Formats: sequence, C-alpha cells, structure tokens
Amino acid sequence: MSPDTTDLTATMNKLGADARAAAMELARADADTKTQALIYAAESIRDQAKDILDANAQDRETAKDLSPALTDRLMLDAKRVAAMAQGLDDVAALPDPIGTELARWTRPNGLDIARVRVPLGVIGIIYESRPNVTADAGGLCLRSGNAAILRGGSESFHSSRVIASALQKGIAAAGLPAASVQLVPTIDREAVGMMLRMPEFIDIIVPRGGKGLIERVQRESRIPVIAHLDGNCHVYLHRDADLATAQSIVLNAKMRRTGVCGAAETLLVDCAIAKKALPPILAALHAAGCEIRGDAAVRALDPAATAATEQDWFTEYLDAILAVRVVDDLDAAIAHINHYGSHHTDAIVTENETDAARFLQEIDSAIVLHNASTQFADGGEFGMGAEIGISTNRLPPRGPVGADQLTTYKYVVRGTGQVRP
Amino acid sequence: MSPDTTDLTATMNKLGADARAAAMELARADADTKTQALIYAAESIRDQAKDILDANAQDRETAKDLSPALTDRLMLDAKRVAAMAQGLDDVAALPDPIGTELARWTRPNGLDIARVRVPLGVIGIIYESRPNVTADAGGLCLRSGNAAILRGGSESFHSSRVIASALQKGIAAAGLPAASVQLVPTIDREAVGMMLRMPEFIDIIVPRGGKGLIERVQRESRIPVIAHLDGNCHVYLHRDADLATAQSIVLNAKMRRTGVCGAAETLLVDCAIAKKALPPILAALHAAGCEIRGDAAVRALDPAATAATEQDWFTEYLDAILAVRVVDDLDAAIAHINHYGSHHTDAIVTENETDAARFLQEIDSAIVLHNASTQFADGGEFGMGAEIGISTNRLPPRGPVGADQLTTYKYVVRGTGQVRP
Repeated sequence: MSPDTTDLTATMNKLGADARAAAMELARADADTKTQALIYAAESIRDQAKDILDANAQDRETAKDLSPALTDRLMLDAKRVAAMAQGLDDVAALPDPIGTELARWTRPNGLDIARVRVPLGVIGIIYESRPNVTADAGGLCLRSGNAAILRGGSESFHSSRVIASALQKGIAAAGLPAASVQLVPTIDREAVGMMLRMPEFIDIIVPRGGKGLIERVQRESRIPVIAHLDGNCHVYLHRDADLATAQSIVLNAKMRRTGVCGAAETLLVDCAIAKKALPPILAALHAAGCEIRGDAAVRALDPAATAATEQDWFTEYLDAILAVRVVDDLDAAIAHINHYGSHHTDAIVTENETDAARFLQEIDSAIVLHNASTQFADGGEFGMGAEIGISTNRLPPRGPVGADQLTTYKYVVRGTGQVRP
Repeated sequence: MSPDTTDLTATMNKLGADARAAAMELARADADTKTQALIYAAESIRDQAKDILDANAQDRETAKDLSPALTDRLMLDAKRVAAMAQGLDDVAALPDPIGTELARWTRPNGLDIARVRVPLGVIGIIYESRPNVTADAGGLCLRSGNAAILRGGSESFHSSRVIASALQKGIAAAGLPAASVQLVPTIDREAVGMMLRMPEFIDIIVPRGGKGLIERVQRESRIPVIAHLDGNCHVYLHRDADLATAQSIVLNAKMRRTGVCGAAETLLVDCAIAKKALPPILAALHAAGCEIRGDAAVRALDPAATAATEQDWFTEYLDAILAVRVVDDLDAAIAHINHYGSHHTDAIVTENETDAARFLQEIDSAIVLHNASTQFADGGEFGMGAEIGISTNRLPPRGPVGADQLTTYKYVVRGTGQVRP
C-alpha cells in the first residue's frame, strides 16, 4: 500500500466514523432543531455567496476545456446561489418524516406494536459536475435525519467545498454536528471506490450523474444503491386517444427538456389511429427540431423518418430524437414497453378508461401515467418538495425519492411483561 | 464450458423465463383466484401426503449420517404434513396486499397521484434442510403475487420435489400458471451461484439457513438480498426494572428456544440492581441448563460463571449460553448494544417510561421491545400470519417479512391531458 493510499484510507475512515457519530445524534434530533439547521444553512449560503462565486470561478478556470453543456452545469451565478439557499428553505418547510407511526396495532396478548419511521443512517452521495447538488442533497439528508457524505465531481471541487463549509456553519449554529454533512476532501478517484466498500460507515449510496457513473456504482458497490440507470420512457397513443391531447402530451413529453430522465424516447401508436394521428404529430415534432426514427409503417407516413433499429427501442437518447412504432393493440404496446423499457416512467393517452386501467396495472414501471406527460416524473411535481433522484429499484424506495423515501422503519413493541408461550 | 454446465445454464434460464412469465400473470390475478390457488394447494398437499412421506423416507435414508438436529429438521411425519397444509390455508385467509392504495393525493394542476402496492416479481428462495419451507415460502410468495424459484437443500430434495409438484397441481387447478412456484430441479450446487447472477429473471433473493449460506449469498449476489446474518439479541435490565418481570423475560428470551434468531444472547444489567437482581436470575438460568459467561462484576456474583471475552459480546450462540455484563447506566447499555449487536431485536425491562422511550428510540435495531421477550421477533407473533424471515437490511423491508413486505409499489398518475410547464 502506498503512503498516499494509507492517507486516503485514514481520511475516509475518519470521515465515515464522524458521519456515523453524527447520524446517531441526528436520529435523536427533534424536528424543530433540524428545521432550524436548514434555515441557518440557507442563511449561511447567502452570507457566503461571494466566496462561493469566487470558488466557482476558480473551478471554471480549471475546467475551461469542458463541453458547453458541462460548463453550464458547473456554472454558478448570483441567481443560482439564491436558488440553492431557497431550496434549503423549501426543504426546511417540509414536514419532518422521522418518528411518524406508519402503523400501530395491539395483539391479543396485549403487545402494542408500532412501525415507526427512522432515518436510514449515513447516505453516501456521488455526483458529477453540478455543485448545487451539494446543498440540495445535503439538505434533503438533513431533513430526513441522515448524515451525508458527499463526493462531488472534481470539476466542481472548490465550489462544493465552500458550499459544504457554509452548510456546516449553519448546521453547527443550530447545535447539530457539523459532520452531519461532509464533503470528501480530495479529488482522488479512489475515494469513490472506497465509499462503495464502507458498509460499516455508509448505509446507502446514491449516485447522481451520467450512465458511466451509475453503471460503475451499481457494479462495484457492496452497499445498497438507490438509482436508475436508464429513463427509456414511452408514450402510447391508444386507439381511443383524443388527438389534441395526444399531440400536446407527445410534444411536451419529448421536447420540453430532452435531457431529463422523464423525457419520452419512444412513441407507440395504435394502428387504428396511426394514419390520422401521426402526420400532424410528426410534423409538429419535426418543426420543433426532433429527429424521427420509425418502423416501416411510420416511414410510410413520414418520408423524413429514418429507419429505427432494434437498438433504438432500447435507447435513452436524452436528445431531440424519437423512436416511433405502430403497434397492433394495447397488448402489443404493453409487451413492447415491458420488454424494451427501463421500468422508469410510461404513459398512455386514451379516453378508454378500461384499457387505461389495464395499462396502469400491467406496465411494470415505477411511474405509470394516464393522459399526462412523462415529464412529470419528478419529486417536486409529485409534491414531495424536493428529490434526490428517481429509483427504478424493485424494492422501495421506487420512483421519486424525497425526504420521506430517505427513511426506513423499525418496530417498537410495548409490553407489560409478556413472554412467548 | 462443460456439457453439464451448458445444460444447467439452459435449465436455469428456462426456469427463470417461465418464472418471469408466471409473475406477469400473477401480477394481474385477482385476490380470489390467488386465495383459491392457496386452498387448492393445501388440499393437494393433503391428497399427496403419502407420496410426500415416501419421498421424505428416501431423503432420510440417503442422509442418515446427518446430526440429530439436522435429521429432525429434515423429518416429515403426518402431523408435519398436516401443519404444512394448514399453513397454506392460513396464508389463504390473509388479506391480499396487492392493489392497495398506500397513499393518494391530488396536485394543484389536477394530477391524481396514487402509490399502489404491487408484487416484487420473481423471488428466489435458497434454503437448507427443512422441506416444509417449500410450502411455506411458496405460499407466501403466491399470496403476495410473486413467482417463486425455490432452491432447497440437497438432503431434502426428494421431499421438496413432491411438495412443489403438489403445490403446482393446486395452483394450476385455480387457473394460475404452474410455474408460479418452481423448484430448481437439480442438486448441483452451481445452481445457487447461477440464481445469484440472474437479475433478468430474479428480482429478490431470500436465503434461509445457517450463517455460511447467508454469508455466501450476501457476498456473491448481484440481486438484492432480504436476510439477516446474525440475531445477536440483548435484554437490558434497567435500574427501575420490576424484578419478577425481569426474571421471567430473561428466562424466556434465552431459554424458550435457544436456536431461534430472536433468542437473547447477551444480558446487560444496570449496576444499581446487579447485586439484587442477578443472583436469582443466574440461579434460574443455571437450573435451566444455561452456561453463563460474565464480566468481572458478574463473576463476583456467580462463581459458576466463566469469563466473557470481547468476542462473546459479538456472538450469537444459538445455544444455552448467555453472556452477561454489568453496565453503568442506560447510556452504556445503548452504546453496548449499538456497538456489539446485530441490529436485530433488543429489549429493555424497566418501569421507567422516560428511559424506556430513550431505549426504544436510540437502539438502532429492526425490533425494539419494552417489557417483553425478544422471542416475540416473529412474523406470526406480530400478526402477519406467516413470515419468510426477518430482515436486518437498512432499507425496507426491515424486521419480520410477511406477505405485505414481499411487495413494492408503483405510482399511478391520472391526468386529463396535463403537460409540464
């Protein structure tokens, strides 16, 4: 083991032990104290706005060869810093999930059993360039009584460091441990690998970023991961779809923002309405700058469409490209989505309630929608206040992960001396 | 790849594909059909009792060199077969968890969002000698709408094969796919390794058996595992404990059955009551055949106690042995349990409600009890009707895992054409 690795191991173990100790204090903290910590953290971000912007300028100077998209993600300005602080205030206003009795019942022998919400413990969050994740994720963990170990992208290291330090000042001002939110203090990539192998210190890993990061984390982690790899979302236009509704939902689902996980990637159209419904929708998509990749039936209706390959049905473009297929009926649509989809978010457009109910039941995805855009796949849009991401895990949490979903439960059993016969 | 491995791969892939197809049908099945399938399965077990007993005799003949404990686990008689059938009838009488709306709310834009309980999908269950697990686990999976792939111990292979075949007859008689419950049709140990690497066909792995099996599964699985490795359970006698209650709880928690995961393994006694409380309790434990391993304070009160080592505090004996330690106060008890325990089940005995509340909040275990025996750690005792095991995972399901806990949820969003601004 090289001296550097020894140092890194010591650093990470210290971070982990401090987080574990902080988590035990946070689990005991009352709602008002956590709320106060979030409000102080927001104030602290506002107070240190200049330091944050200076650090961000330093990050951008170092990272000047990045793509425009990455540079935009990295960039902070006064407005973004204000939004970050406002986000903490919003999370402060959320109800505290901890201590809620999810269920409570009494057994014939008099035992009183309650299922009570408790924090998960220590959450490790691994993200890429966006420095505001430092505040967003830290705040959501604090609201749910969890300690956070944050590992930001190396490009945003200086920004994240100042943001984390501002959060810690606010948290400490409320009397909670500063180690409730810690940033990994090095850009050494090996630190990520260490986090994935620290089950004694980290209970849950949440990766946020591109597919490469998610794949690596899912492959290497010895700790449970909350994440989704792909958002290959579908819109299915059923034969009883209202055509105006269909057009507005397809346009929004694909083109509102093409880079989000809830963006539609494949459009399925029932053969009974394809000739009537598709031409105006495809024309509107082309007009909006969207490329169309279709099967033969689609290409017969749209000379501008290129041929979709088998691979297209599996692809999350995250771009202004839509795969379009004509299907025989509801069964074919369900079979396509369950086979090619990523179990993230899928929508049906129809006025037929019976077939809508079948779609909602039989599509095996975290979010299923009837007559609404897939772009609603978002914790904020669900009313959760904020989210740390969307999960396509089978086990809970599934779907948008907000403060309530960053918790688990334990059973509290109250007796009067009962023993088991 | 040897011809045998190729065959095994083909066998396992067929099993997995059939299970996946069955799971999709089960997810659509209504409650009555699943109830009928369970009742028919119970009848089928009763009808084939003789075949089951014959197969069990064959297993026992092959396994005659096993220890008495293992032989007892393997053994079926008319009473045990009847109990197996009754267990299926009991599970048939449980409420169907699938389709329940766990929550439902409307957003300001009119979107109607429901969190709805759905099956997990395909559950792989890996167990050791007890052939009745075949029926118990199969039944619980069916109640919760999941397909099951069962891998029993090689010692009970013939018994499990006849039991699984009887279940399939009952399930098919109710019009559900026979592949809803399948037994891995080989004793090849490599089949277990394959199950752990079949995420496309198996959603969740549940290992049931000794520590060696659980460790292997937790280490090798690429699929989420629901399990507990250790049940290192504690009873803490607080200084305000009622001594009669303390004695009856300690005796029951340790000695009712020593081989279950909810059996107490360490007794902590507050120093304020040790001299008064411990001698009669230790005498009663000795009289019941329990060995005592104590710290110096305990040994001063009990000459028959041997010295407990650091390792003893970590140990799940599953035997008539109890580690006993005198602690300074509630804080020391909580620190001991959270450090040495396995986060399974821990109890406090006290008449002091304030300190009981602190213990129940601060002990980081799946089950925490006040004035009740740790041996209540059991899904049946919790009123769940049956359980597939107890989970010490951080993420849900945590604690006893019954039919409700073998489910997940999805979000069903009903709109009227909403698009996201």
